[in-house]
Amino acid sequence: MTNDTSISNGLEGVVAAATRLSHVDGDAGELIIAGYRVDDLAAHATFEETTWLLWHGNLPTTRELESFRAELAARRSLLPATLAIIRECSKAKVDAMDALRIALGTVSLVSSDATAIVAIAPTIVAAFSRLSSNNDPIPPRADLDHAANYLYMLSGDVPDAERVRAMETYLNTVVDHGLNASTFTCRVITSTGSDLVSAVVGAVGALKGPLHGGAPGPALETVFEIGETSRAESVLRAKIEAGDRLMGFGHRVYKVRDPRADVLAAAAERLFTRAGDMRLYSLAREVEATAIRLLEEYKPGRRLQTNVEFYTALLLHGLGLDVPLFTPTFAIARVSGWIAHAIEQREANRLIRPKSVYVGPRDRHWQASELAAD
Amino acid sequence: MTNDTSISNGLEGVVAAATRLSHVDGDAGELIIAGYRVDDLAAHATFEETTWLLWHGNLPTTRELESFRAELAARRSLLPATLAIIRECSKAKVDAMDALRIALGTVSLVSSDATAIVAIAPTIVAAFSRLSSNNDPIPPRADLDHAANYLYMLSGDVPDAERVRAMETYLNTVVDHGLNASTFTCRVITSTGSDLVSAVVGAVGALKGPLHGGAPGPALETVFEIGETSRAESVLRAKIEAGDRLMGFGHRVYKVRDPRADVLAAAAERLFTRAGDMRLYSLAREVEATAIRLLEEYKPGRRLQTNVEFYTALLLHGLGLDVPLFTPTFAIARVSGWIAHAIEQREANRLIRPKSVYVGPRDRHWQASELAAD
Repeated sequence: MTNDTSISNGLEGVVAAATRLSHVDGDAGELIIAGYRVDDLAAHATFEETTWLLWHGNLPTTRELESFRAELAARRSLLPATLAIIRECSKAKVDAMDALRIALGTVSLVSSDATAIVAIAPTIVAAFSRLSSNNDPIPPRADLDHAANYLYMLSGDVPDAERVRAMETYLNTVVDHGLNASTFTCRVITSTGSDLVSAVVGAVGALKGPLHGGAPGPALETVFEIGETSRAESVLRAKIEAGDRLMGFGHRVYKVRDPRADVLAAAAERLFTRAGDMRLYSLAREVEATAIRLLEEYKPGRRLQTNVEFYTALLLHGLGLDVPLFTPTFAIARVSGWIAHAIEQREANRLIRPKSVYVGPRDRHWQASELAAD
Repeated sequence: MTNDTSISNGLEGVVAAATRLSHVDGDAGELIIAGYRVDDLAAHATFEETTWLLWHGNLPTTRELESFRAELAARRSLLPATLAIIRECSKAKVDAMDALRIALGTVSLVSSDATAIVAIAPTIVAAFSRLSSNNDPIPPRADLDHAANYLYMLSGDVPDAERVRAMETYLNTVVDHGLNASTFTCRVITSTGSDLVSAVVGAVGALKGPLHGGAPGPALETVFEIGETSRAESVLRAKIEAGDRLMGFGHRVYKVRDPRADVLAAAAERLFTRAGDMRLYSLAREVEATAIRLLEEYKPGRRLQTNVEFYTALLLHGLGLDVPLFTPTFAIARVSGWIAHAIEQREANRLIRPKSVYVGPRDRHWQASELAAD
C-alpha cells in the first residue's frame, strides 16, 4: 500500500495540463495571457477582444470583433424563469455567488453555448445586486460593450470612458490564471464529456470559496479600519501580534509581488486621480508598504507580498461596487477563461480521474456489526 | 521547462487523497465501502444506514437511525420556487441531469445542509420525470424510507418489499467509488472553502458526462436490439467489426469484472425471478457472456469485462424506470458519497490546485498585433 508521503494533497507541483492560455511564473512574478504580458494586454484590450483571444488563440479581426460584440449584446437578456429565480435568491438573501450559480445554471433552458454564458453573467449579477438593495433590475443595452453595459446595469448611468477602461482592465487582468481551483474544476467536469453550463456552474461554486476567489472584501475593510496613514503601523502590528492573517497579502504560487496587483494598482491610481478620492488611494498605498515591511519583520523569509485581492478591492470600490459584488465580478471575468480551458480540454480530452489511497477499516461484516449496534 | 512526458493528463496514477470511505482494487475486482465488501453491505443495508455509515464512519444505533430517517423524511418537499424551475426544465425538455443540477442548486434558498440535499434529490428527479411525461408530480410520503419513497413518487404505487430491496441494493452499490471524476470535482470545490450545495451541484455536472455516469442507457439498448439469444453473437460481432464500442463493457480502473456488476446481477436475478420477466434476464446474461467471449477474441489481453452500467440498466429497467432516469438515479445514490468526501476533505483541507505547463506563444506585444489585425 502507498504510504502517506506519496499522497499529493492539494496536487501541489503536479502538472495536470498543458495550456496555451496563460503562464503563471510565481518566482519571476510574471503572468502571460495567450502570449501577452498581463500589463500589456489588460490595459489595452476590450473584454470582447480578450475573450476572443483566449477562445481562438489570436486577436479578432475587425469583422470578427464586430460580429462577436453583436452576438454577445444580443444574448444579454434574462429569461423570465431566470429573473424569477434571481428574485427568490434576493428574497432569501442567499450569497451573491450562490445566486450567480443558481441563475447561470438556468442558461441550459435555452442553450449550452459559450457566448450565451458569457453574455448573461453580468446581467444576472447586476439584477441580483439591484434586487438585493430593493431596486428594479435595469435591462441591458445592446449599444454598450460588455464592461460598459455591466456598469450601466448596476447604476443606471452610462459610465464614462475612464470607468469603462478601469473595468475592462480589471476583467482582463483576472480572466485567466493557470490551473487555479475553479478552472481545474471546469476542466474535470468537461473531461467527463459534460456540457459547458455544467462545467461553468461547477467553477462558480469553486470560486466562491474564501481560499480561492471569495475574500477580496476583507482587504478593503482593513484599509477602512486603519482610516488614516498615521495609524497604519499600529493597527497592522496589533493584527500580526494577535495572530490574524493580513488579508490581501500572500499567494500560494507567487513568491514575489503578484503582477496583477501592479496592473490593478496602476488602474486604481488613474481612476482615483480622476475621480478625486486620492486620499483613499494614498492610504491604501501606505497600508500596503507598511504591511509588507511588517510582514518581513515578523515573518522574515516568507516573502509575503501584495496579492490580487488588495487592489481588486480598491479598484472595484472606486468603480462604485459594494463588497458583495467583488467575487461575482471576478466570476464575470473568469468565465471567459473557464470556457477557454473547457475548449482546450476537449481538444485533447482524457477523463480526469486520480486515485485515492484507502485508510479506513477492513473486514467488517454485516451480521456482526448489526448485533453490535443494538 | 517541464517537458510533455511529465504532464499527468487525466491524473492517472496520481494519488490525490487518503480516504476511509471506499477502496477500489481494480486488479482484484474488489470494492470495500467503509470496511464492508460491497456485496455484503449493498444487499443488507437500507440507504439511510449506508449514508450514515459514510458520514459517521460507523453504522447508526437504532436511535440514531430513527432520528436520521425522520429528519430525511421531513425534508423531502419541494419549495414552490424549486417546483417552478422543474416545470420550466420539463417544458424546455432539458436533459434530466441538467434539471437535477438546476433544481438541486436551489436548495441554497433554504439550507446548505447535507441532509437537506440528500432528502430532496429523489423528489426533484421524480417530479421532473412525472412532468416530462405530462403527469402531475406526486408529493413525498414521510412514512416511507428513502428508496421506497422514491419508487412511490415515480409511479404513485407503494412498492413491495422486493422492489424496495432491489432499489436499496442499487443505491448502496453505487454510493461511493474512490476518486471518480464527480467525487473529485466535489473535493476540489470543497477545498476552496465553498459550501456543500456548490460542491454537489458541480459533481452532478460531472456525473452527467458520458465518460462518467452518463451512459447506462446504451447497454440496455444493445440487449433490446439483439432481442433473442440466438442473435447475440451475430449482432455483437457486427458491432465489433464496425468498430463500435460495446456499451457496458470495460472500465478504466477494473481489469477484472466490476464487483458491482455481480451485486447488481444477483439483485436483478431476484427481481426478475419474482416479477416474471426471466426472459429478459436470461437474454442479458447471454449477451454478457457472448460479449466477453468476442471481446477476448477481437481484443485479446485487453481484459474488457462487464462494468456497472450493464446491470444497472437491467435492474433499473426491471424496477420500471425509463432510460432517462438511469443517470439521475445514479446521482441520487452518489450524492451521499459526494457529501461524505466533502466532510472528509474539510477534516484535513488543503486547497486543490495543480500546475499547468504553458505551451502557448510568448513575446506578443499589443501595438504590433493590433496593426496586424487590421
